[in-house]
Amino acid sequence: MLRSASLYAAIDLGSNSFHMLVVREVAGSIQTLTRIKRKVRLAAGLGANNHLSSEAMERGWQCLRLFAERLQDIPSLQIRVVATATLRLAVNAGEFIASAEAILGCPVHVISGQEEARLIYQGVAHTTGGDEHRLVVDIGGASTELVTGNGAQATSLNSLSMGCVTWLERYFTDRNLAQENFDEAEKAAREVLRPVTNALRYHGWKVCVGASGTVQALQEIMMAQGMDERITLAKLQQLKQRAIHCGRLEELEIEGLTLERTLVFPSGLAILIAIFTELNIQCMTLAGGALREGLVYGMLHLAVDQDIRNHTLRNVQRRFMVDIEQAHRVANLAVSFLDQVEDEWHLEPISRELLLSACQLHEIGLSVDFKQAPQHAAYMVRNLDLPGFTPAQKTLLATLVLNQTNPVDLSSLHQQNAVPPRVAEHLCRLLRLAIIFASRRRDDLLPAITMNVAGEKLELTMPEKWLDNHPLASEMIEQECQWQSYVHWVLDVQ
Amino acid sequence: MLRSASLYAAIDLGSNSFHMLVVREVAGSIQTLTRIKRKVRLAAGLGANNHLSSEAMERGWQCLRLFAERLQDIPSLQIRVVATATLRLAVNAGEFIASAEAILGCPVHVISGQEEARLIYQGVAHTTGGDEHRLVVDIGGASTELVTGNGAQATSLNSLSMGCVTWLERYFTDRNLAQENFDEAEKAAREVLRPVTNALRYHGWKVCVGASGTVQALQEIMMAQGMDERITLAKLQQLKQRAIHCGRLEELEIEGLTLERTLVFPSGLAILIAIFTELNIQCMTLAGGALREGLVYGMLHLAVDQDIRNHTLRNVQRRFMVDIEQAHRVANLAVSFLDQVEDEWHLEPISRELLLSACQLHEIGLSVDFKQAPQHAAYMVRNLDLPGFTPAQKTLLATLVLNQTNPVDLSSLHQQNAVPPRVAEHLCRLLRLAIIFASRRRDDLLPAITMNVAGEKLELTMPEKWLDNHPLASEMIEQECQWQSYVHWVLDVQ
Repeated sequence: MLRSASLYAAIDLGSNSFHMLVVREVAGSIQTLTRIKRKVRLAAGLGANNHLSSEAMERGWQCLRLFAERLQDIPSLQIRVVATATLRLAVNAGEFIASAEAILGCPVHVISGQEEARLIYQGVAHTTGGDEHRLVVDIGGASTELVTGNGAQATSLNSLSMGCVTWLERYFTDRNLAQENFDEAEKAAREVLRPVTNALRYHGWKVCVGASGTVQALQEIMMAQGMDERITLAKLQQLKQRAIHCGRLEELEIEGLTLERTLVFPSGLAILIAIFTELNIQCMTLAGGALREGLVYGMLHLAVDQDIRNHTLRNVQRRFMVDIEQAHRVANLAVSFLDQVEDEWHLEPISRELLLSACQLHEIGLSVDFKQAPQHAAYMVRNLDLPGFTPAQKTLLATLVLNQTNPVDLSSLHQQNAVPPRVAEHLCRLLRLAIIFASRRRDDLLPAITMNVAGEKLELTMPEKWLDNHPLASEMIEQECQWQSYVHWVLDVQ
Repeated sequence: MLRSASLYAAIDLGSNSFHMLVVREVAGSIQTLTRIKRKVRLAAGLGANNHLSSEAMERGWQCLRLFAERLQDIPSLQIRVVATATLRLAVNAGEFIASAEAILGCPVHVISGQEEARLIYQGVAHTTGGDEHRLVVDIGGASTELVTGNGAQATSLNSLSMGCVTWLERYFTDRNLAQENFDEAEKAAREVLRPVTNALRYHGWKVCVGASGTVQALQEIMMAQGMDERITLAKLQQLKQRAIHCGRLEELEIEGLTLERTLVFPSGLAILIAIFTELNIQCMTLAGGALREGLVYGMLHLAVDQDIRNHTLRNVQRRFMVDIEQAHRVANLAVSFLDQVEDEWHLEPISRELLLSACQLHEIGLSVDFKQAPQHAAYMVRNLDLPGFTPAQKTLLATLVLNQTNPVDLSSLHQQNAVPPRVAEHLCRLLRLAIIFASRRRDDLLPAITMNVAGEKLELTMPEKWLDNHPLASEMIEQECQWQSYVHWVLDVQ
């Protein structure tokens, strides 16, 4: 076998960067092998007459020669190369594409804005949690895609001629971050948006997800500053004020904003503010993937699971040979506890789902070693790609599995921003108890436990004589009461 | 299914502690689920008339009630319970055993010293690298086993009536760590040893492996103090002097010696010194397992692989779905490099084997994520149970896979004590180059490279025009030359 049958490549010739993604299919999921990104800045070579300069073309070809070497090893049916906005616009795109195809040895598809929007939606649907009606926003270098959909199905596809590179050139040419520059950039963006606003509102959405560098940069900023990960208009306005305060692009400094993302950050921010305002968006989270992921999942013919998070959990359990029966046993017990306390503790549906996810993953650390298994589980949850879970949710899951036994590290439960600190404590308490009472690994031996809460005090009532008849479990529970008391959690077992 | 068909339990009622080990068979390897240890100190309840006190028996039964709860969930054919020296000696052992069997609900076998020695050897053979003729030493609470063997086969089984608990009671009763106490303890141990010395020498050994707490404690001390992991008589004598200097057991403080191991450390040390002296042992390393592992592997009917390390590598690759062809490709290339430089760089056979092991494991981090894959690989190698590799070898492998690409962290290559720092650097250089030149994942595209070393300077001669025809590889090599130059490694590619 000269070419590796399990490899797939997706290449996207964007207006700002060219990207190559090489993946391997492993047990029904995708393992990334290579990501190469080159800032070719093709859009910058597009003159007023939409003529692509020969310098820009040479930069592009140079990059493709690198990609080509890697592509030779991949079956040609498992390669997809697409070009977007700049090559849609360039009047001499044909010249660029002809040489590009010769270099790569495979066809390059200049895709329409509609097709780009469709692929982005597929990439989001395969990698992002929540199967409700969603709005997907992707701000590219020269175009912005807005798509509504439900589950695997896109319901409206829109591609608009504005992007963070073109808006930078047009409204921040002097690199000046004055209020007026933002005002003009936003005003222009709103005008571009207006024709599609009604259609988008007609389809509607429950959740809004953002792809692309701008939203990624916002995510990094919020994580670095310890904020919760939801993007709101108020936060965007704050960042805009901060940018205006910095005065000039060269002076722009925001905690968590990397140098690499700085150049097109203000223009992307202006477009995003326009989108929030025009569509009255309350809150946006980061998508797990977009165009390249859409290309790869399309080639792999993997169906979109209606429940991405559940698909992810099952996949991880299979890959790391988790004892699935035991995971379900702990989850069922945790649910029976949760049902008894959720009103008093005001636990929301997402808290329930995250607790159950932690139950499904809590033994994953055993795949590394029994010693320090909770630490290994936390390491893996923190670092695994878990499509459907946001970074903040991953952090919460990692801290829950870390604190599944042994003394509780309260600070780690507080250093997450997926749920309020007190809720994280409650989920942790339920997880720990479910693990203890399921430790026999037998369905028929789960005791019928009555759970009552009075404020922060948790009372368990065990079946009569149960503790006497289970000395090992009694010892574990006694130890647990002690550990919980160290962090002032009152646990009373009768 | 009420009882879990994949669970196995081994219980050992030792003279110092009772242990329970519960494992799960996963993909042909053993995953530990539970380890419970209770310091029952049965031997301390054995009077001069070899009558076991009722207090000691009660302590034992109390512990077994805990174990019993866990045992109920395991098929009875998958449980093995053995008792050793103290219960061999006790005249009223029958009384203890009868109640013990009633509590556990399964038979308790009081095994002979020979059988104990045989099981220990099996445990070592399944978990410890090197298939040459070996001597296994296990210092228990009341008996010491000495076994010679070759591969899976024991050739002589010896069990002697001395142990770290009995020697503590007999020669350090006043908890005094004077020179005379050590002298007497060693002298007595040598006398116990003398009758078996000739037989052991007759069978002979190439490597010597120690199991038990004493050797484990020594290992921890040497790791904590940054020494290489081989136990030598000189090191033992140094530790003895240090103990004498401390004066009394309550004052004993040695960096790396945990409180839990302190009580029986001097008596174990005295026995070990006697063994080293009497048998003229040059060097000893720690075994990966002993009695309990022998019981478990015996039940699982897993054959002893002639090459434990290779078995371990294949197993880890399978569990974490490593691209095995690629691992072999990198290993083959690394060998072809090694062949060209090993004389000049004075690389020993063990260095070759460790380099090949690093090649087999280098992509394991991809199972966690593409991002920071080398860091993930290092984390896993550091924390996985890798039968056949010593702790120092694991540390070396972890640092090699950590430094497989990106800038080199020289200090991590020096903070291991499996091979000299310079050798670790050499192995790292070869690994990095093998990975780069195998990155196409195709056997037919491996270039024929001539490698020359002049001191620390490494010269690669590529086939003509190869670099021109491979722009991506050229870029990688150029980057690599730069990274190597940061740590003053001279790499010259023509």
